[in-house]
Amino acid sequence: MARERLYLYDTTLRDGQQTQGVQFSTAEKTQIAAMLDGLGVDYIEGGWPGANPTDSEFFAVRPETRAVFTAFGMTKRAGRSAANDEVLAGVMNAGTPAVCLVGKTHDFHVTTALGMTLEENLENIEASVAHIVAEGREALFDAEHFFDGWKANRDYALDCLRAAERAGARWVVLCDTNGGTLPAEVRAIVAEVIAEGIPGEQLGIHCHNDTETAVAGSLAAVEAGVRQIQGTLNGLGERCGNANLTALIPTLLLKEPYASRFEIGVSREALKGLTRASRKLDDILNRVPLRAAAYVGASAFAHKAGLHASAIVKDPSTYEHVDPGLVGNERVIPMSNQAGQSNLRARLKDAGIEVAPKDPALGRILDVIKSREDQGYAYDGAQASFELVARQELGLMPRFFEVKRYRVTVERRKNKRDRMVTLSEAVVVVKIGDEKKLSVSESMDEMGADRGPVNALSKALGKDLGPYQACIDDMHLVDFKVRITQGGTEAVTRVIIDSADGQGRRWSTVGVSANIVDASFQALLDAINWKLVRDGVRPA
Amino acid sequence: MARERLYLYDTTLRDGQQTQGVQFSTAEKTQIAAMLDGLGVDYIEGGWPGANPTDSEFFAVRPETRAVFTAFGMTKRAGRSAANDEVLAGVMNAGTPAVCLVGKTHDFHVTTALGMTLEENLENIEASVAHIVAEGREALFDAEHFFDGWKANRDYALDCLRAAERAGARWVVLCDTNGGTLPAEVRAIVAEVIAEGIPGEQLGIHCHNDTETAVAGSLAAVEAGVRQIQGTLNGLGERCGNANLTALIPTLLLKEPYASRFEIGVSREALKGLTRASRKLDDILNRVPLRAAAYVGASAFAHKAGLHASAIVKDPSTYEHVDPGLVGNERVIPMSNQAGQSNLRARLKDAGIEVAPKDPALGRILDVIKSREDQGYAYDGAQASFELVARQELGLMPRFFEVKRYRVTVERRKNKRDRMVTLSEAVVVVKIGDEKKLSVSESMDEMGADRGPVNALSKALGKDLGPYQACIDDMHLVDFKVRITQGGTEAVTRVIIDSADGQGRRWSTVGVSANIVDASFQALLDAINWKLVRDGVRPA
Repeated sequence: MARERLYLYDTTLRDGQQTQGVQFSTAEKTQIAAMLDGLGVDYIEGGWPGANPTDSEFFAVRPETRAVFTAFGMTKRAGRSAANDEVLAGVMNAGTPAVCLVGKTHDFHVTTALGMTLEENLENIEASVAHIVAEGREALFDAEHFFDGWKANRDYALDCLRAAERAGARWVVLCDTNGGTLPAEVRAIVAEVIAEGIPGEQLGIHCHNDTETAVAGSLAAVEAGVRQIQGTLNGLGERCGNANLTALIPTLLLKEPYASRFEIGVSREALKGLTRASRKLDDILNRVPLRAAAYVGASAFAHKAGLHASAIVKDPSTYEHVDPGLVGNERVIPMSNQAGQSNLRARLKDAGIEVAPKDPALGRILDVIKSREDQGYAYDGAQASFELVARQELGLMPRFFEVKRYRVTVERRKNKRDRMVTLSEAVVVVKIGDEKKLSVSESMDEMGADRGPVNALSKALGKDLGPYQACIDDMHLVDFKVRITQGGTEAVTRVIIDSADGQGRRWSTVGVSANIVDASFQALLDAINWKLVRDGVRPA
Repeated sequence: MARERLYLYDTTLRDGQQTQGVQFSTAEKTQIAAMLDGLGVDYIEGGWPGANPTDSEFFAVRPETRAVFTAFGMTKRAGRSAANDEVLAGVMNAGTPAVCLVGKTHDFHVTTALGMTLEENLENIEASVAHIVAEGREALFDAEHFFDGWKANRDYALDCLRAAERAGARWVVLCDTNGGTLPAEVRAIVAEVIAEGIPGEQLGIHCHNDTETAVAGSLAAVEAGVRQIQGTLNGLGERCGNANLTALIPTLLLKEPYASRFEIGVSREALKGLTRASRKLDDILNRVPLRAAAYVGASAFAHKAGLHASAIVKDPSTYEHVDPGLVGNERVIPMSNQAGQSNLRARLKDAGIEVAPKDPALGRILDVIKSREDQGYAYDGAQASFELVARQELGLMPRFFEVKRYRVTVERRKNKRDRMVTLSEAVVVVKIGDEKKLSVSESMDEMGADRGPVNALSKALGKDLGPYQACIDDMHLVDFKVRITQGGTEAVTRVIIDSADGQGRRWSTVGVSANIVDASFQALLDAINWKLVRDGVRPA
């Protein structure tokens, strides 16, 4: 049986931006669009050109995508033609191949919120969609509050859909704007809409997660006949978020009855990048990835219950509904370090360290990593620090120098011109062999601006390391990430520092402490030690 | 029409404990049980007595609850009687009014994982349940892997349910153990089970969230006829978690068709404690509450889109499917550069500041917010700082005190016992009226551990503010978030600080600087100023 095509419409860059605390920059939008395109969604909604400077700038530099790049806007206002509505013109001027306009379909909202007649609203929908089509673009109509509108005034809500359809809209999207419609009701109403003659091949669904059922609501709509799903990566979005594409994509591709009935634009190969894409988005937003996230969470395939873990070892299918590798995720069995040891050997081999299969150091390394992770360390994103821990246990870590003490001062006060300025200063004392070296640095950059205490520390630490100086002179700090996390029962600060050198290498190190300066210092120290080891420098 | 009774079975203390990283103490279990009982769930599953020391201890000190307190265990092993199985005896000896035993119903698991015959397993189910009933307790049977079992060998899965029913089980619970069954399939299979003669009044549902549809799967099962839902608070549980009672309870109580059809043990009054209960659990687990959580999240009623905010001001029902007060949550209208003047006025009104619609200060406030957001500030999550900006522009911001200078030192060196220790110290100089005040503090906590430079600064700043001291003495810092972000063309640090006071208020402030200490200081200053303004303190 030929599979039907189901379309995925991503609105991470528009509705996802409505997430509280989320404000994408143009560079971040570009990065996310590339990621979405790599996954294989069919439409990428970039934002609302003209609504704010970032969205306008993003559409001006708009990335080349395989997906249909779409601008969002709203239907024209009453009392002017579509061509003369400057808000709509702003959207059209972005020049995207597709344009999606939101419009009202709930009579109460038309008269109350817009203060226009029901007829004016119908005319606005029809004229706006017709304008998009006349300009040679693909038109989509987002039927705002459709489900509530249907329940309040079924005939009018349907008239709104028909106005869009008549004007040539490729898609009419049924939006559950306030997220209050439960899946069974979504299913029933979609079926009635189709029975009224609007073909499912032209219908989309846009669910919100206010009752934690947006994924199920989207699936119910598909079962009832819609053929486009709108959603966002990681379920970002206004209030409780939108339907989560990160959960929907693997379900549609791997689970029945969907996998046999539908074809989507995401390939099995691209699906393997799903976990990475999800975590990358969290990284861009500096959010802690949700461990319990379906399919992509760090706990999604973690088997903690003793009964489960022992069965998993015999046959993974006993407690896993899909193979974690299919979505680029990993099985975690806290109690079994059998699998842990072979993973560890593979990772060490990547770092150029060969260890025999039964070497007892392997168990010790796993124990140290486990205990440090309990303290808040994270070695997934800090391979260089991981290598140093392993080398220490394997007796392969030279002692290059010893830090005797350091001191960092941040001072804010008036300068000579009576302006408040901030200055940081760091003093580091190290012992190399028998020699003690004191270095001091300020945090000023070339422009005379304060770059903060970690910058001062980094400069002081790298200022005079005697015999090692030649090796570290081409190092520089390229990124610095901070996260408040859990260490045991206390909140601690985790700092991850990315360093680079003249040979084009880039490496990441981690530090954890209740004191952010100290966490940074640990990561800086690891960065220097890794460089010395990797360059094969001999300890003085 | 009389409403049917629907029962809620909470397994936060048992399946919820399978969450990666979660390990309740006996005291925490006691606290959570009291919270669940206050909400009004029907059953509280406390754990598996005999399986680990904590669970055994908890059952020994077991709290008095209105809910039916339930012990969990598994069906007896083959080759011995129920009375002679010491694992089952451990469960029975806890003396709870109800006992829930998990048993296999999937033929593959019976033969592969248990290595027994299908007949032996049936006999174990029947004998174990009969033993519970004979001891005068209420018996529940958790049918493990039921949905996969049904698909593999329908007759055998059904025989297992019938064995439990025949032996007198009050409830037979259909468990989707690996979380792979989607709602439509749950609904269909439950309907078939009921059609086979197992009454819905004796059936329960136990869903996991591996496809992000556990809530919808539970609702689908109820629609098909089951009358007990198993779940956990905040959706805790193995892998991706269990069905989330925090989302299910308000849906069952407030939303149709459930509210009219069913009666649950949770009252409307108790529902108002739901948000508090959810956050309290996160607090016990030291987890950051999920902002986007349905009903109870801090973002669940946050209206960021400008269009939404202006409609909400006219009529909250436009973009809210339920009133946030019903679940003890609050409406939030955050600021961001997407928002317009109506958003702004609504937010100011919530803060007790009335501004006329066309007041030119509104435009100035938006300009200041916009320009600060360009520098890296984010006011979505820092409403107290937003209020201060607005008050400044409106001429409603008193000048309480002036910071003349501050200095923070972080030092790491050897202590008297020759161990490396870190200590932070902060000096703050403020001027109040004509009086200059110098305060100094260290970062040590009660345990003698360094809590870092921001802690020291916070303590020094709040140590002696003369006439204001009485007002700020009940303030404390509850959370601290750091993000490296873009300010113009440079990377800057954004710090968001959450503060709380003795009146139970909690507020968030923001600071931005290339220097993390300075960014923190700004946020701390805002926190104090907001408290002084809100408490109506007069400037000295």
